[in-house]
Amino acid sequence: MANDGVYGGSDNEERKKSANTRAVTLKEARRTGLTREALIALHETEGVGRISIATVFLRGLSKGKDALAGVHRYREQDWRDMGLSARQAGAVAESLLPESIELMLAKHAAKGLRVVTYLEDEYPELLRHISDPPWVLYYRGDWSLVHHPCIAIVGTRLATGYGRKMAEDVASGCSKRMTVVSGLARGIDAAAHGGALKGAHGTIAVLAGGVDYCYPPENKALYREIAEFGLILSESPPDTILRPGLFPLRNRIIAGLSYGVVVVEAARKSGALITADLALAYDRDVFVVPGQATSPRSLGALEYFRKGAHPAIDANDIFQMYSHRLPEPPAPVGGEDDTLANERSEPPLTPEERSIYEILLDQPCSIDELKVKSGLTFGHLNAVLLSLLIKRRIHQQPGSVYHVL
Amino acid sequence: MANDGVYGGSDNEERKKSANTRAVTLKEARRTGLTREALIALHETEGVGRISIATVFLRGLSKGKDALAGVHRYREQDWRDMGLSARQAGAVAESLLPESIELMLAKHAAKGLRVVTYLEDEYPELLRHISDPPWVLYYRGDWSLVHHPCIAIVGTRLATGYGRKMAEDVASGCSKRMTVVSGLARGIDAAAHGGALKGAHGTIAVLAGGVDYCYPPENKALYREIAEFGLILSESPPDTILRPGLFPLRNRIIAGLSYGVVVVEAARKSGALITADLALAYDRDVFVVPGQATSPRSLGALEYFRKGAHPAIDANDIFQMYSHRLPEPPAPVGGEDDTLANERSEPPLTPEERSIYEILLDQPCSIDELKVKSGLTFGHLNAVLLSLLIKRRIHQQPGSVYHVL
Repeated sequence: MANDGVYGGSDNEERKKSANTRAVTLKEARRTGLTREALIALHETEGVGRISIATVFLRGLSKGKDALAGVHRYREQDWRDMGLSARQAGAVAESLLPESIELMLAKHAAKGLRVVTYLEDEYPELLRHISDPPWVLYYRGDWSLVHHPCIAIVGTRLATGYGRKMAEDVASGCSKRMTVVSGLARGIDAAAHGGALKGAHGTIAVLAGGVDYCYPPENKALYREIAEFGLILSESPPDTILRPGLFPLRNRIIAGLSYGVVVVEAARKSGALITADLALAYDRDVFVVPGQATSPRSLGALEYFRKGAHPAIDANDIFQMYSHRLPEPPAPVGGEDDTLANERSEPPLTPEERSIYEILLDQPCSIDELKVKSGLTFGHLNAVLLSLLIKRRIHQQPGSVYHVL
Repeated sequence: MANDGVYGGSDNEERKKSANTRAVTLKEARRTGLTREALIALHETEGVGRISIATVFLRGLSKGKDALAGVHRYREQDWRDMGLSARQAGAVAESLLPESIELMLAKHAAKGLRVVTYLEDEYPELLRHISDPPWVLYYRGDWSLVHHPCIAIVGTRLATGYGRKMAEDVASGCSKRMTVVSGLARGIDAAAHGGALKGAHGTIAVLAGGVDYCYPPENKALYREIAEFGLILSESPPDTILRPGLFPLRNRIIAGLSYGVVVVEAARKSGALITADLALAYDRDVFVVPGQATSPRSLGALEYFRKGAHPAIDANDIFQMYSHRLPEPPAPVGGEDDTLANERSEPPLTPEERSIYEILLDQPCSIDELKVKSGLTFGHLNAVLLSLLIKRRIHQQPGSVYHVL
């Protein structure tokens, strides 16, 4: 249900209405007396989008306090009077029947999903303040994470080894004092979630489709870990069929939940940059992890420096921006100087080890490829690789293909 | 001559004096009546450094207008009265003999060197405003370049291919509207000079040793080209024996001549960062060309972001900072908005087109694969692909495989 309607993306009626609506404040929404269940049912009704719901709130508001408290008794004509089309009105009248609502809630319960609406105190505070906040959020996992200071880490699905390593390291660092939000996509998103899962403040995956469905399928193990130790949330009702238009809408939630958005690697037209644009539109910070300006996979991100993005080499660059809003760093780790501490604990690399390591950062290589790229003899190369394996900086895959850890 | 004395780096007397001197303004220096020739002779006298010369100026100043106009008649005791040590006073009295001055000027002429002192109008204006401007500059080539808006481009001698390419590209771009200053060192410096030689505003090489001596020797061809088409200058008198202490002093001239300093690649302890530190101390801008944060050869440079350095992806990032102080860009090239202009001319994509485009960014796909990945119907998908083909964003290969352009 509600595949078109939730967001009104392909709904002409939604588009026509959008010019005549405005944002509805929490106070206004509560004043109408609409119940949480009715709001969820509206949200899940096929063909009813975000804008239509805003129209209903605004009409209700104009009729006085608690005007929407009795909508479960509304007939089709009553809904037409609230500004819905004939098609919407019929569908909504049906969705709000007591038996429909019971069925809907039973379905959520059966799938182990929980629901938070815009009407409730538990709704994420920062998300309320975007221009187009979702009315309803479905989730699985630890809801308390949305009340932590959040930082989004996003980037291309086609990440390089360098990008993945930076996403993981920055996320791991950030998760000591902030919750890391991302989109469970391939590449940078997955690396960021992976890095943050280890941290005290964990990670939130915002999905484009329903919370009950893992996309992309290869991230299933990560999905399960996040459901257990973090939080998975979505604006899409369960059973929503995934379609491309949902991804940009999902991105607004990633940006909306977060103090800022860190872009790790992104080509010029990358979808991750939609999240960065939304962050700027919502007056949040954008950070860019530096990369090579000659790499098309970095260039899109780097250009955000021109829009005022801040460089982020590690988590400290992010913490510094929010130092007054963050809890104190955990004592034993020593906060501010993590980088130095980590570097001290990681055994240093010899120049040769480092040069091999840097080749592998680009992409995994076979030993033959490494021989060509490094110019070392097989014997010498083997010794260097062994040393890197012992230092736990690289990993050997079947077929003697090496990649960085 | 003057190997120690020019800068006073290893001269105890200089060090003792420095606490009691202050900067001498142009007006003050001229008021003393010291001639250009006398200043050059003082500067070239072994054991007499920058601070000793400042002391002479200040003592002269306290004695009234034109007090130093007759120094060619001074005996050793007169120089001791001006604050010089016995050793310095003897050497200076000898340097200022008419025959010594004649010999000195003849030597400059024989080597094809020209000399500009702090006393003259042609002295570079920005360089006057640093805390420790050189009293004398020797040069070969086109002196007018010092009066152009200058930008320094510096970095590690151990540059990567990426670093050299970026130095060359940024320098080439900058040289359309600014003069590129660097130090003729291996690696980034050489690449920057090479890139800028092609540009309308050329390049200045600031040497640590004498202008008549090319160091490092492998840059001899570049040295000759810069001498012919650009400018080579140094504070060191001819025949100065190169020593490590001269390089940081040379770096202050690179920073002092320039609106800002661009650091391309630099490890944590790189000498190029001295130039960046001096630029900050002189209240000039520092730019950093982004590189990979995992590369030790970038890390030193990247850390300057934390000191307020600006990211520079290409010359436009530098031009933008100085737009009000730079001449108009040459008409055909279009300066300022190269990137943006390109983006504007591309027709925008609809959300569906964007999602298909992004799938293809991952890898070329057949229409069947696209159908699975996008969830669109064949008819719908065909329409989107056609539109992307018309917008020249994708290309169709034989066998209906699509890839991005």
